[in-house]
Amino acid sequence: MRKPYFPAVDGTPPPLTLRVEREVRFEEVDAVGIVWHGRYPSYFEDARVALGYRFGLGYMDFYAQGVVAPIKTLHIDHLRPLRFRESFTIEGLWHWNEAARLNFEFILRNSADEITTRGYSVQMLLDRNHEILVVPPPFYRDFLQRWKNGELV
Amino acid sequence: MRKPYFPAVDGTPPPLTLRVEREVRFEEVDAVGIVWHGRYPSYFEDARVALGYRFGLGYMDFYAQGVVAPIKTLHIDHLRPLRFRESFTIEGLWHWNEAARLNFEFILRNSADEITTRGYSVQMLLDRNHEILVVPPPFYRDFLQRWKNGELV
Amino acid sequence: MRKPYFPAVDGTPPPLTLRVEREVRFEEVDAVGIVWHGRYPSYFEDARVALGYRFGLGYMDFYAQGVVAPIKTLHIDHLRPLRFRESFTIEGLWHWNEAARLNFEFILRNSADEITTRGYSVQMLLDRNHEILVVPPPFYRDFLQRWKNGELV
Amino acid sequence: MRKPYFPAVDGTPPPLTLRVEREVRFEEVDAVGIVWHGRYPSYFEDARVALGYRFGLGYMDFYAQGVVAPIKTLHIDHLRPLRFRESFTIEGLWHWNEAARLNFEFILRNSADEITTRGYSVQMLLDRNHEILVVPPPFYRDFLQRWKNGELV
Repeated sequence: MRKPYFPAVDGTPPPLTLRVEREVRFEEVDAVGIVWHGRYPSYFEDARVALGYRFGLGYMDFYAQGVVAPIKTLHIDHLRPLRFRESFTIEGLWHWNEAARLNFEFILRNSADEITTRGYSVQMLLDRNHEILVVPPPFYRDFLQRWKNGELV
Repeated sequence: MRKPYFPAVDGTPPPLTLRVEREVRFEEVDAVGIVWHGRYPSYFEDARVALGYRFGLGYMDFYAQGVVAPIKTLHIDHLRPLRFRESFTIEGLWHWNEAARLNFEFILRNSADEITTRGYSVQMLLDRNHEILVVPPPFYRDFLQRWKNGELV
Repeated sequence: MRKPYFPAVDGTPPPLTLRVEREVRFEEVDAVGIVWHGRYPSYFEDARVALGYRFGLGYMDFYAQGVVAPIKTLHIDHLRPLRFRESFTIEGLWHWNEAARLNFEFILRNSADEITTRGYSVQMLLDRNHEILVVPPPFYRDFLQRWKNGELV
Repeated sequence: MRKPYFPAVDGTPPPLTLRVEREVRFEEVDAVGIVWHGRYPSYFEDARVALGYRFGLGYMDFYAQGVVAPIKTLHIDHLRPLRFRESFTIEGLWHWNEAARLNFEFILRNSADEITTRGYSVQMLLDRNHEILVVPPPFYRDFLQRWKNGELV
């Protein structure tokens, strides 16, 4: 069995999830006729951005709080190719983490509901001077509290 | 100490390496003023393509042999940002592997010679029908033999 | 008054049109906070691809007929910027042309229905040897005939 | 004979020019095996950025002066395709203009010195509030003066 990217921890809230629908665009396909591997970070970002705005903590919300959240790690496992005009979904899962750290998992499925791609990203929360925030900032703690209370749906 | 992506195996040849020089282009920078994380697969590819052609086994050489080598896994660790017009180098390391599998490691350094980014890619060799080649094809075994003989420089 | 990209010719059928909806993605925005000008060819292509498939003459249909239709000319006039997460529409207009030539016009509008961008593309039909098709191929003449008959809706 | 994009005006200084060398990257090639037309704005920008920094008026110099110079018009004429790993040059020509307007022309040539692509861009100078600068700002007038004096080499 596949090892999970972010093993579940007992007593923590389940991930926040959603699915984004997409179609492969012509410019995303390479000379071999499949989506070029370097396009997948943008597919992942579609789900990450959608999760942020759906649950009230988007890129611009961080920015407005003087916090930046650059990608620290990105990992992509390719299982099946995608081709021009193929429809697929990007499932994004925002995994619970109490540290100043954002853990996202991504699962792409083609129209036959086969998993084509899996991956994850890890972001650190930094202040305006690009120093790591060891303690999560108040607006992020509030977000975690609402998550724990089951208010994020 | 950092765990190596591809631990060294006693008695195997050292990696094939080279460095590519690059400068950050305007379109690679995001709204926050740093290189968007999704551009790094293209930086990695610059070194991977250069290694292939330098050592006689490029994308088109595989293709001419009826073999495709899609990316199976891509992993990127970000340590420092890069900014518009910044000069940097991409070191590519092709790690020895006797299976039908291509293991590349990448190290980006800024002009102060600080490591900004590390990562790796794994490719599988597939035949025309996209079946995995369990046994490495003859042209790849020849390549490995020349590598072992120290003929690839 | 603005000069039309493709002046109307009396007695010819009106353009085929449709609108595609889009939202600005994070990676499309540059360091100044607006969509980088070089992303617009991909917005135009969204409408061109959609028109092709909606009216039965897509990229792959040409390809299946041994015909390629590379872009000969691309022109873009920018009137207003677009920003991250902004919703906009891309209107595509396929203008009638009896020669072996595809003329598309594009109009982007923001959510206030203001025109942000206008432009056009011209494609030549080429055969497998990349020679210009002086006479339109049969499948393209059939397409024109159905257009003239008002069958393309 | 081809009509020039920016007709020469008697008594004005010749354009500022330079050439940038480039090689087609794998991700720039489309499913048909040629450089996707939407990559050319980035090739043009390579020459535009290089001209700006070579002659002392780069993107960041404008920005430091509180001036932005967004692209108003972009035009591309494709004459021949470019393919993976092909070497080519991008000639940039900065045409004299006394208004608050930047006119650039671009000529791409393959390794056989054949012209593959031509085009131009027009930029307007705007202030911090995105209002058009009717009168060129002092630092730009100084730049024009040095150009007229033949000091930009």
